[in-house]
Amino acid sequence: MSERKTIAETLHNGVSIVFDVDDVLYQDGTGHHQLALIRNGIFGKVLMLDGAVQVTSRDEFMYHEMLAHVPIAAHDNPADVLIIGGGDCGLAEEVLKHKRVGALTQVEIDASVLEFSKEHFADFNASVFDDPRFRVEIADGAAFAAETDQRFDVILVDSTDPSGPGAVLFTTEFYRNLKRILRPGGIVVSQNGVPFLQPEEFQTAMRGLRSVFEIASCYLVAVPTYFGGHMTLGWSTDNAETLTVSEETLAQRMAGIDTRYYTPLHHRASFALPRFIETLLEEATK
Amino acid sequence: MSERKTIAETLHNGVSIVFDVDDVLYQDGTGHHQLALIRNGIFGKVLMLDGAVQVTSRDEFMYHEMLAHVPIAAHDNPADVLIIGGGDCGLAEEVLKHKRVGALTQVEIDASVLEFSKEHFADFNASVFDDPRFRVEIADGAAFAAETDQRFDVILVDSTDPSGPGAVLFTTEFYRNLKRILRPGGIVVSQNGVPFLQPEEFQTAMRGLRSVFEIASCYLVAVPTYFGGHMTLGWSTDNAETLTVSEETLAQRMAGIDTRYYTPLHHRASFALPRFIETLLEEATK
Repeated sequence: MSERKTIAETLHNGVSIVFDVDDVLYQDGTGHHQLALIRNGIFGKVLMLDGAVQVTSRDEFMYHEMLAHVPIAAHDNPADVLIIGGGDCGLAEEVLKHKRVGALTQVEIDASVLEFSKEHFADFNASVFDDPRFRVEIADGAAFAAETDQRFDVILVDSTDPSGPGAVLFTTEFYRNLKRILRPGGIVVSQNGVPFLQPEEFQTAMRGLRSVFEIASCYLVAVPTYFGGHMTLGWSTDNAETLTVSEETLAQRMAGIDTRYYTPLHHRASFALPRFIETLLEEATK
Repeated sequence: MSERKTIAETLHNGVSIVFDVDDVLYQDGTGHHQLALIRNGIFGKVLMLDGAVQVTSRDEFMYHEMLAHVPIAAHDNPADVLIIGGGDCGLAEEVLKHKRVGALTQVEIDASVLEFSKEHFADFNASVFDDPRFRVEIADGAAFAAETDQRFDVILVDSTDPSGPGAVLFTTEFYRNLKRILRPGGIVVSQNGVPFLQPEEFQTAMRGLRSVFEIASCYLVAVPTYFGGHMTLGWSTDNAETLTVSEETLAQRMAGIDTRYYTPLHHRASFALPRFIETLLEEATK
């Protein structure tokens, strides 16, 4: 009998996902973070940061497709797109599949994260680094939003969880700055956690977004390694029309883009929330 | 430092969910099954059978509401309902909330399972045992479907996974017998697993259902402790109209029933599949 080597997600108290480790590809506990990249039989490459799964090569498409395609397909002219966070560049890959996107700015706090992603996640992000529309800014996302002169049509906040260094990306001040740099009619989409396990974090985020935007709603994605049932993606805008784009229009805007999760029909369906999430949302945004 | 006591789900090779055990409420490894009921800080009571989570008191409502309310609300006269399996009786509880249901038969292979559920899951199933419409038949589900003279409008197959003793509930012969005992216009809903982790089991089930029914489709539910993203519930019928019932009609039929997951809007949305599930379904049913 050989010993089974494992690594555990320790994000939630009381339950953890434990991955069999077929290979340790990278491990670093010297900086501010505990970083580990392992290979797992089901999920391929699994990146863990401080005990929380960040991305896996097998299920990243679910989260990245829904985070990118839903707002971009819903916008009638998504010329300038901003990503805050998104270090693995799987989100940038999806955004750049849209020819209607003229320029994509990605703000990343740590240059080494991009080097790391380039080296280890080329299977899904290789095309990003050769795209002339892609520009990286090494900066703190909150500071960038407070200071930049650029303006954007779609802003995607691909943050870590609202504890630790990602916490500034869940403040009302940050949301106010997002609105400042959003063009009229624009859309902000944000990672808002798993409401079943993080109801307070979900409500805090939605309350903050609602204090700044006319519309603060959310839609659903179910990602295996983001444990806990549906994850919600926040949908903040002053433009109600972004919520009623027809399936036909969505399909036209997605023409030529192959997807494994997104469909125009599922796009529209993903805004129909289970009752307990709807109730949490209503309480936070009334 | 006190030792942390845990129990692991071992359903999938390569990944497991590990629950902290606050209390062991019941444990039995003497029969055909390894049964354990534990208390966990997040999920409340967790029932594990042969290393697979069967039900938890905190997230059972998601699965049971979607398994019960979707077909019953979609049927114009669900007078006679059959549950095969469903030992914890959380499904029966949801079915019996419908006044339009005149009689509910539950076929359970093992009488002791019902006694166990009565004792340990009273928080969600207590009302079932006093309902005069509820009748239990202690029998093998496959044999019952082959032999009974009863006929049903809605059949709910609340099985364990398609390995071990539950395997007979995934055969074409069983599906043929379900059709035999289904009234014209009726609906069969079945637990069809998590396609991301069990694509072959999903396709085998859908292929079998499609060989017997005009329509073999499925809809989605995301349950935290059924790990792996969306779980699919099979929708088998010869009555296409069951797929297009309006939100207004669904709402009328749900009037007076409080839910925590189901809404008429989410009911309709749950049939819009992510692309990879749609593709698996199309391959299996073309």
